Amino acid sequence: MKKIINKPEDFVRETVEGIIAAYGEQLKLGNGDYHVVLSNEKAPAGKVGVVTGGGSGHLPVFLGYVGKGMLDGCTVGNVFASPSAGKMEDTIRACDFGGGVLCLYGNYGGDDMNFHMACESVEMDDIETRIVKVCDDVASSPKGEESRRRGIAGMVYAFKIAGAAAEQMRSLCEVEAVTKKALGNIRSMGAALSPCIVPQVGKPTFTVGNGEVEIGMGIHGEAGIEVRKMMTADELSSCLLGKILEDMELAKGDEVSVMVNGLGATPLEEQMIVYRNIHQELTDMGVGIVAPHIGEFATSMEMAGVSLTVFKLDGELKELLLRPAVTPFYRM
Amino acid sequence: MKKIINKPEDFVRETVEGIIAAYGEQLKLGNGDYHVVLSNEKAPAGKVGVVTGGGSGHLPVFLGYVGKGMLDGCTVGNVFASPSAGKMEDTIRACDFGGGVLCLYGNYGGDDMNFHMACESVEMDDIETRIVKVCDDVASSPKGEESRRRGIAGMVYAFKIAGAAAEQMRSLCEVEAVTKKALGNIRSMGAALSPCIVPQVGKPTFTVGNGEVEIGMGIHGEAGIEVRKMMTADELSSCLLGKILEDMELAKGDEVSVMVNGLGATPLEEQMIVYRNIHQELTDMGVGIVAPHIGEFATSMEMAGVSLTVFKLDGELKELLLRPAVTPFYRM
Repeated sequence: MKKIINKPEDFVRETVEGIIAAYGEQLKLGNGDYHVVLSNEKAPAGKVGVVTGGGSGHLPVFLGYVGKGMLDGCTVGNVFASPSAGKMEDTIRACDFGGGVLCLYGNYGGDDMNFHMACESVEMDDIETRIVKVCDDVASSPKGEESRRRGIAGMVYAFKIAGAAAEQMRSLCEVEAVTKKALGNIRSMGAALSPCIVPQVGKPTFTVGNGEVEIGMGIHGEAGIEVRKMMTADELSSCLLGKILEDMELAKGDEVSVMVNGLGATPLEEQMIVYRNIHQELTDMGVGIVAPHIGEFATSMEMAGVSLTVFKLDGELKELLLRPAVTPFYRM
Repeated sequence: MKKIINKPEDFVRETVEGIIAAYGEQLKLGNGDYHVVLSNEKAPAGKVGVVTGGGSGHLPVFLGYVGKGMLDGCTVGNVFASPSAGKMEDTIRACDFGGGVLCLYGNYGGDDMNFHMACESVEMDDIETRIVKVCDDVASSPKGEESRRRGIAGMVYAFKIAGAAAEQMRSLCEVEAVTKKALGNIRSMGAALSPCIVPQVGKPTFTVGNGEVEIGMGIHGEAGIEVRKMMTADELSSCLLGKILEDMELAKGDEVSVMVNGLGATPLEEQMIVYRNIHQELTDMGVGIVAPHIGEFATSMEMAGVSLTVFKLDGELKELLLRPAVTPFYRM
C-alpha cells in the first residue's frame, strides 16, 4: 500500500484536521468533534438547514460542499462507512435555525437507516425534518426502480439546488420539492479503470482487469453493468452518455449542465478529452450546456476513471444552479 | 497503457479543444491554433502582457492560469516538450497591449532557448520584452546555484504576482522586478511515489520502486536527491519542509503562503493530511499562513506524489497574492 498517510486508523480524523487547519475561516467542527463539520456562515433565523453525511474517501464529497449557498453541515463517517445516527443528530441540531432541516444524502443502506433514526430523535424536540435521497446512478438499478439506485456525483448538483433554495428563505416543503424536482432531472453513470485501497484494509477491495474498464461501477467498487475491453475516450464517453439518454430524454432546445467527474487518479487532461466529446454530441443534438463542471467532485481516493452526470434544467433550476456559492472546494 | 484518450498524437489538441469547449467565455485560441491560448479579458492599452509556455501534461499548468488577474496568454507544447519559438512569438504578439510583455516560464532548456528566439523576433518590431525564469525546485541544484534550478509548482505563485502587478498597470520594469522579488522568496520540493506515462511513448519513462518514494523528483521524472523507503505523511512532509527551510530561513512572525500540490493521482485526502503537518510545524515556529493552496496546481498526469511550496510574503507580495483573480482553474 503506497499512500501518503500516517496510521490508517487516523486517516479520516487527520484529513478533517487538515481541512479545518486550511479553511478554518469557512468551516468549524461541532463541539470539537471531527465527525460534525459545520459552516461558519451565520444563517438567518428561519432558514432551512441543509445537511448531508456519509462515508469518507470521496473528497470533495461530502464535507467539501459545506459553505455559503450550499450545505450547512455534514456528518463524517469512516472510509466507505456510514457515520452513526448520534453524530447525524448532532449535525441536524447544529443546523436547526428554526425553519426545519433537510437531510440530503446518497441512497446507501447504512446512511439511510441512521438518518431516519436521527430524524426521529430530533423530531421529539420539535425540529422538523425532511429526507431526500440521491439516486442518480442509472447503472445501479433499471428504469422503473429509480428509488433503488445509488447516489453518486449527481448529489453535488442536488446540494447546490437545495442550498440555493434555502438561502432564498424558501420553506422546508419548498426546498424539499425543488430538490426532488432537480433530482428527477439528474442522471449519472461512471466507469472505473482501476481500484482503490481502503487505508485500514491495505489492499484493493476489488479489481479491474488489465486492459479492461468496468462500466457503471460504483464509487465504492460496487459491480457495474458490464466489463468491457478498454475503449477510446470518445467511445467511453459516448457509452456513458448513451446509457444516460436511454433513461432521460433530451430534445433539441433543452438546456443541461454536465459534470465530468474524475474519480481520483484520472488526470485533468483526460477529463477534458471526455468533456470534448460530450460537448460535441450534445451540441450536435441541439442541446445547450450551462456551467459545465469538470474536475474532481466525488472521488474514490486513488481510483482511476470518470463519471458523467447530466442535469436537465428549467428556468427555476438554472437560476438556482447559477446563484453564487462559495465553499473551500466549490465556487459558483 | 490505461488512459482515457483517443489517438496519442491527438492528446494535446483534444485536451485544449475540451478546455475551449468548456471555458470559451474566458479563453480563446490565437488564430484558431491550439498552441496559442489567450484570455478573453479585454486588456487596457498600455497594460503589460504576461505570458508563459511549456510542455503539456501538467494541467492546470500552464494554460489553466490564463485569465483575469493572471496570465494573458500561454503557448502550449506537446507532452513534456517545449512549444516552438514561432508559437511563442504568436503568443507574445497577441499579448502586446503597448506596455511590453513579460515572458515568465519554468527553467527548462528548450523553453528557454525558444522564448529567447521569440523575444528577439518581436523586438525587431519594437515590442519590448523581459524574461523571468522560475527556478523554485530546491532539489534540482544546490544553494549558490539557484539559477540552474528547475521550475515547478512555485510558478503558480509567480503567475499570480506578475498578473496582479500588471493589472495594477505597473510598468514592464516594475512587473519584472516584483516577480523576481517574489521568486526570490519561493521554494519548492516534490516527492514522487509512482511514474506517469507519456501517451505517445505508452509506457512509464522512469520507475519508482515498490515501497519507495523519490525525494526531489522533477515533474517529468527527473532524478531527485534520494530514494527513500516509503515514509508516513508526517515524515514525508517534514522532510520536504526541512529541505526548503535549509534553503530559505523563516523566523517567528514571518508570513508565508503554502502550496501542497498533488501531482495527479494522489487523493485530496492525502494532500490534506500533508497540509495538516505543514500547518502544525509552521505554527509551532510562529510562522503565519496566508491563503493556503491545496489541490492539483502543477501535475504530471497520473503521477502519484506531492510537492510543497513555501512563499515568504512581505506587505506588497501579500497584497498582490490576495487580489482577485479568476481563471477556469484558479480563483482568488
